[in-house]
Amino acid sequence: MNGAQALITTALNEGIEVCFANPGTTELPLVLAMDQVAGMRGILCLHENVATGAADGYGRMLTKPAMCLLHLGPGLANGLTNLHNARRAGTPILNVIGEHATWHRAADPLLASDIEGLAHTVSAYTKRNVDAAGIASDLAEAVERARAEGIATLIVPHDCQLGDAGDDRPHQRAISKNSYSPANVTAATRALKRGKSAILLGGEGLSETGMRLAGRIAAAAGADLLCDTFFARMERGGDLPAATRLPYFPDHALALTRRYENVVLAGTRRPVAFFGYHEQPSYLTSEEQTVTLAARGEDVLGALEAVAAELQASQDVRRQPGKPISMPRGGLDAQSVTAIIGLLQPENCIVMDEALTAGTPYFEASRNAPRFSHLMLTGGAIGQGPGTATGAAIACPDRKVINFESDGCGAYSVQAFWTQARENLDVVTIIGSNRSYNILNVEFERAGVTAPGPVARSMTGLDRPNLNWVKIGAGFGVPSVAVDSAEALVRELEKALAEKGPRLIEAIMS
Amino acid sequence: MNGAQALITTALNEGIEVCFANPGTTELPLVLAMDQVAGMRGILCLHENVATGAADGYGRMLTKPAMCLLHLGPGLANGLTNLHNARRAGTPILNVIGEHATWHRAADPLLASDIEGLAHTVSAYTKRNVDAAGIASDLAEAVERARAEGIATLIVPHDCQLGDAGDDRPHQRAISKNSYSPANVTAATRALKRGKSAILLGGEGLSETGMRLAGRIAAAAGADLLCDTFFARMERGGDLPAATRLPYFPDHALALTRRYENVVLAGTRRPVAFFGYHEQPSYLTSEEQTVTLAARGEDVLGALEAVAAELQASQDVRRQPGKPISMPRGGLDAQSVTAIIGLLQPENCIVMDEALTAGTPYFEASRNAPRFSHLMLTGGAIGQGPGTATGAAIACPDRKVINFESDGCGAYSVQAFWTQARENLDVVTIIGSNRSYNILNVEFERAGVTAPGPVARSMTGLDRPNLNWVKIGAGFGVPSVAVDSAEALVRELEKALAEKGPRLIEAIMS
Repeated sequence: MNGAQALITTALNEGIEVCFANPGTTELPLVLAMDQVAGMRGILCLHENVATGAADGYGRMLTKPAMCLLHLGPGLANGLTNLHNARRAGTPILNVIGEHATWHRAADPLLASDIEGLAHTVSAYTKRNVDAAGIASDLAEAVERARAEGIATLIVPHDCQLGDAGDDRPHQRAISKNSYSPANVTAATRALKRGKSAILLGGEGLSETGMRLAGRIAAAAGADLLCDTFFARMERGGDLPAATRLPYFPDHALALTRRYENVVLAGTRRPVAFFGYHEQPSYLTSEEQTVTLAARGEDVLGALEAVAAELQASQDVRRQPGKPISMPRGGLDAQSVTAIIGLLQPENCIVMDEALTAGTPYFEASRNAPRFSHLMLTGGAIGQGPGTATGAAIACPDRKVINFESDGCGAYSVQAFWTQARENLDVVTIIGSNRSYNILNVEFERAGVTAPGPVARSMTGLDRPNLNWVKIGAGFGVPSVAVDSAEALVRELEKALAEKGPRLIEAIMS
Repeated sequence: MNGAQALITTALNEGIEVCFANPGTTELPLVLAMDQVAGMRGILCLHENVATGAADGYGRMLTKPAMCLLHLGPGLANGLTNLHNARRAGTPILNVIGEHATWHRAADPLLASDIEGLAHTVSAYTKRNVDAAGIASDLAEAVERARAEGIATLIVPHDCQLGDAGDDRPHQRAISKNSYSPANVTAATRALKRGKSAILLGGEGLSETGMRLAGRIAAAAGADLLCDTFFARMERGGDLPAATRLPYFPDHALALTRRYENVVLAGTRRPVAFFGYHEQPSYLTSEEQTVTLAARGEDVLGALEAVAAELQASQDVRRQPGKPISMPRGGLDAQSVTAIIGLLQPENCIVMDEALTAGTPYFEASRNAPRFSHLMLTGGAIGQGPGTATGAAIACPDRKVINFESDGCGAYSVQAFWTQARENLDVVTIIGSNRSYNILNVEFERAGVTAPGPVARSMTGLDRPNLNWVKIGAGFGVPSVAVDSAEALVRELEKALAEKGPRLIEAIMS
């Protein structure tokens, strides 16, 4: 068995079954090994950022790592921004990077670069394999670290892939259970009893179990539920308790958090403004009001359960549906597009939301939706949605995936549509086409820039020419339509949801 | 004047007139400054790798830096692979990266990352500005370093852009002239006189002056001219001396270099195999036969001139046209597509060639073409062509740009077509559509893999579904057609070359 075969065998033993890839010459032994060792599903992506984004979506849905097979430093570089997003989401991912043969690297061939330097910016763990006999152990360790800490990157030289791997067969390691702090439970319980409180949820706190526990605690303590502005995955809809999303701009967020004597953190950290603005603080809660129950990486569910027990909050809370939203008619804007999605999205679907300025109304519009998993852009590096939707669909082939995407973000990752077409994935992409990087216009307004000059207008506008998403989607193999009225969006979305396979709908907003 | 205005003012004083950009909130003061300070041309790119690729093409044509304005660490990360290519090409580029406000960074906002860590992998110079008053000097220093060493990266926090820049007005610094080594001239002259020699040219050696000097030397010494396999820019065609391109695979390259007692390097380094292959060396010349006349960064033209003087090689050599190539007919393959381009390309055009397996026959097919500038993929990080063609067209608005692109590489950078459309650039893209990463199939063949398995076939094939380049091009605003015969390619290429503005032709090869 050569090193490449040992690597794939060990990955399969560790439960890794999917490999998102764009391989080159230095990864070819690993590509061949995926045929020689049965069981690994290799999925080609036309750009590495689709591969890493897909691994993020897969990991969020299955809480286990997929493998990304990337070509040398440039392959990793291309995938870095969605690894940045995955790092912020806390998603486990295993990167395997092919590298020049050990003896060839000193000659500094053209494709050589500082792979570790790149990997360190996103990885919790980075290792360079140095011999075929160590590949299986290196891989097993990388998987263990990915499971525990997030992103692990293993660099594997070409000659090590080809060398004799011997009979190193590492045993799968037990995953150590996270714990929580009883002192934090006591402090959080005391705070919840003492004064008006909010529980700010993130990470595991937004799982179904977390939401139900938090709902019970909130009911017992008369507290409110908040959630992170940008969460990795939130279970929502149906009879699950609702939470208020922390607003994006610090002044809006502070207006909310200032209502509470205590903000109890469960599965997240003290909230930080997305950008720093003159005369506004970095942190969106004061130190005094912030009470950490369980940070990400701790046993968040155990901590919530302990608080619920302290408060004798045993009564399950079933949310009553809120005020119904009526079906919009006429022209499309962020309100009407999001209302239509919220009204039509089917039970048990997955929504990957990278709609930015249209994402804010979507959170409200989906309040009464049936049960669904809500994924968001987590690290602010735009171009995540199409790849992450792709990976979510691979992870959950029986669930409909809706990717609600802004045109500016979507243009970064159009290559994902090809993988959706090739793998016939059940993803409906809705492009909210406002033909601008609208968040920048909002920033101009807030900064008092009432009449941006020609350069500023040109840097924020996606018009001249308009992107034709019907052609772009179809060019990559996905059946695509454009609509500019609520009635047409309803018709096309109902049709797309009723069918299997990838579809794209451009919702042209006026 | 605030820091952002001081930065733009200083950049203009330093002769930087073009800014390829995809800005976000942390760059908005710089965007506004481009309106407040007249003279900078801001060009929006829908992906940062288009911006950096365009800066590479611009810098290759004008040998001066353009500015790339990138959004925080992720913006830089997205542009890294074309910066890798630019580093290998030796192109001067000035990156300006917006960063979180200095006081906000400690809170680790979601978009924060290790910008220096990323920048170090591609930049000769990286600096973090720390106050508005220092911005002008920091910028001037970065430009100086970019001119001398290649890629310079300046990180500018948002609050420094907004702060008072005072009256720091750095003087433009004189550019120090490179020198050459007289000892190397003596050694090279001796070698050329002594035995059968080749002159291997790269960098400045491939400029018009370099080629003419090398041609005179070769004629006087009975030497042959070779060029790097992947050069940044080579002046070719017309009556310029021809050079043989060093073959890609090491066995082929060695079969060529072994014919020579001496290989004299002018503007390049001792050649290195693109990948390391079992039982083949890293270096494509022996240490004994390698004679360095002038490395990149030295005064290559001065060194060539000195050798020519030593050899009394004063006679200008005018190349006679080679054997004529006849116009192909019938179906398309790499031979016929490249023959057609070579026969039709107009005088004084720029050809950006990222056709990989089809690029090899193109070099031969363009041997008899009228004078042109030939640009290539230099660092092996695919997805360079469309961006670099964009930048070359901005640099040279009066010259036709032909981007001969493989489908696999082109799919990485489709966003460039939008900038070509918006700026109405005179770029004709020809996609050599063989519907595979064909170089990997060649590698399989050479490795004796005669029947790749299903994973290997799926990882190298761009079929299922085929990319529809007519729709992709048109989706981004470029008039596009597909052809599958020599006659149709001739007709469409003649038409595209006769018109102004961007065009895309998909040449479907069988």
